[in-house]
Amino acid sequence: MAGDLDNLRVLLVATRNPLNIGAAARAMSNFGVRRLRVVNLYEVAFREARSAVGAAPVLAKAEEYASVADAVADCTLVVGTTVGGRRELQHRLLRLDEGGRVIKRQLKTGSVALLFGSERVGLSNQEMSHCHWMMRIPTREEHGSMNLGQAVAVCLYELVRGRKAASGKPALGALGKIAIAQKGKAAAKSGDVERLTQVLLEVLRTSGYVKPRAVAAEEKLRRLVRRLELNSDDAAVLVGMLRQIAWKLGAGE
Amino acid sequence: MAGDLDNLRVLLVATRNPLNIGAAARAMSNFGVRRLRVVNLYEVAFREARSAVGAAPVLAKAEEYASVADAVADCTLVVGTTVGGRRELQHRLLRLDEGGRVIKRQLKTGSVALLFGSERVGLSNQEMSHCHWMMRIPTREEHGSMNLGQAVAVCLYELVRGRKAASGKPALGALGKIAIAQKGKAAAKSGDVERLTQVLLEVLRTSGYVKPRAVAAEEKLRRLVRRLELNSDDAAVLVGMLRQIAWKLGAGE
Repeated sequence: MAGDLDNLRVLLVATRNPLNIGAAARAMSNFGVRRLRVVNLYEVAFREARSAVGAAPVLAKAEEYASVADAVADCTLVVGTTVGGRRELQHRLLRLDEGGRVIKRQLKTGSVALLFGSERVGLSNQEMSHCHWMMRIPTREEHGSMNLGQAVAVCLYELVRGRKAASGKPALGALGKIAIAQKGKAAAKSGDVERLTQVLLEVLRTSGYVKPRAVAAEEKLRRLVRRLELNSDDAAVLVGMLRQIAWKLGAGE
Repeated sequence: MAGDLDNLRVLLVATRNPLNIGAAARAMSNFGVRRLRVVNLYEVAFREARSAVGAAPVLAKAEEYASVADAVADCTLVVGTTVGGRRELQHRLLRLDEGGRVIKRQLKTGSVALLFGSERVGLSNQEMSHCHWMMRIPTREEHGSMNLGQAVAVCLYELVRGRKAASGKPALGALGKIAIAQKGKAAAKSGDVERLTQVLLEVLRTSGYVKPRAVAAEEKLRRLVRRLELNSDDAAVLVGMLRQIAWKLGAGE
C-alpha cells in the first residue's frame, strides 16, 4: 500500500487561501501521500505556506496546472469530494468509506486523482464533470462545510486506515491482539490472586474494616479481587503494597 | 448514535493557539459533536476564534477547567490520542479504528472524554495518567505531528463513519474485558477512580511504601488503578476500605 499511495494525486482546485494548501500538504505528509497538484486559478503563493509544518517537500514538488482537464489527464480514475447532503449532484455519490475501498483497489494498478474544490463553494459543475464519481464526507446536513485541510486529512485517513489489518490477517485476529494488548502482560495466576486476597483480608481485619466474625467477607473479597482481572505484574505490586501496609498496621499496635 | 454523540466530550488540553480550538470546534460541529471542554492552561481567548466557521455555538458552550482531573471527573471512559509510533507509552495503545469501536459502544451507556494534547508535545505523562488507554492516529513515523484541528477531524470521522451500517451489528466478543467491565455494572466515573487513587496514595505514603519524594509514584499509581477498569460499586467499596486503613494508620501513629 505504501507504494500504492504514490499513485494518488491530491488535486486542490481553485483554492484561495495558501494556508489551506499548506494544511493539505501537512496532512498528506502525515499519511504518506506525496503528489500534490494545484489548479491555481487565483495564483496563490503557496510554496512557503507556514501551515505546511514538516511538509515542505510536498509543497516544493507540487505541480501547478491551468485547468482540471490538464491536471487529471494522466489519471485512470478521477474522484471528486463533497460534504453534507444538500447538493443536487448529477454524479454517482458514494460514502467516503465505500469510495475509499474502490480507490484503494484502483491504486494498485493506476493513478487516481482526488479533487477538493474551493473553500466557499466546493467543486463547480464544470470541475465535477471531469470526475468519474463523487465521494461524500459524512458531515451533518445542517453544517456540512468543512475546513479544506480537515477534509483532506479525513479523506486520506480513510485511504490509510486499517492498512496493516488488511494485509492478510482476518479481522478477528486483529481483535485478538487488542484483547492481549489490553493487559499487555500475562494474567496473574490464581495462586497469586489468592495471596493478594489473603493479605488484603488481613489488612482489612487489622484495620477494623472487616469485623472478626463477619461471615461472607472473605468470599465477597475474593470475588472482588477476581473481578479486577489483574496481570501478574500488577498483582505482585499490589501484594507488595499490602504487605507494607500490614506491617505498618502491626507495628502501630 | 446521534444521541450517543452527546455523551462524547472532546477535551483539548493545554492548547496554545485559539485558532486550533476554533478548528476543533468546526470539525465537532461538522460531525455532530457538541460538548467541548478546554483545560485552558495558557488562558487562551478562544471564544471568538475565527476558525470556528459555523461552530460558534460549540465555542460559546465550551466548558473550561483548571485540570484534566476536573475535566474528566464525570466521565466513565477517558481516552487519550497520540500520533506516529515513536513514543514510549506506558499505556495500552489501540489503533484509531479499534479504539473507535470500543468508544462507540461505551457512548451508548456512559460519557467518554477524548483527550488531545498541546500542539508541540501532545499529552504529558501526567495528563496521560488520567486515561484508561491511548488511541493512535496512523500517521507516518517520519512525520507524525498532526495539526490539532485535523487530528480532531480524523478522530471524530472515525466515530461517525459507517453509522448506519454499524447500527445493528453486535460487538465482537474479543473486546472482552472492556465490554464485560462496563456491562455488568456501570463503570466507575473518573472522579471516583481519582478519589480512590488519592486515598491509596495517602495510605502508601503513611505506611512508608511510597517515599515522601518519590517522583513518578503518583502517575504510576494512577495508571495501575485505571488498568483495573473498576465498576462503580467496586470503586466505592475499595475507597471505603482504604479510608478505614488510612484512619487506622493515622490512629496508630
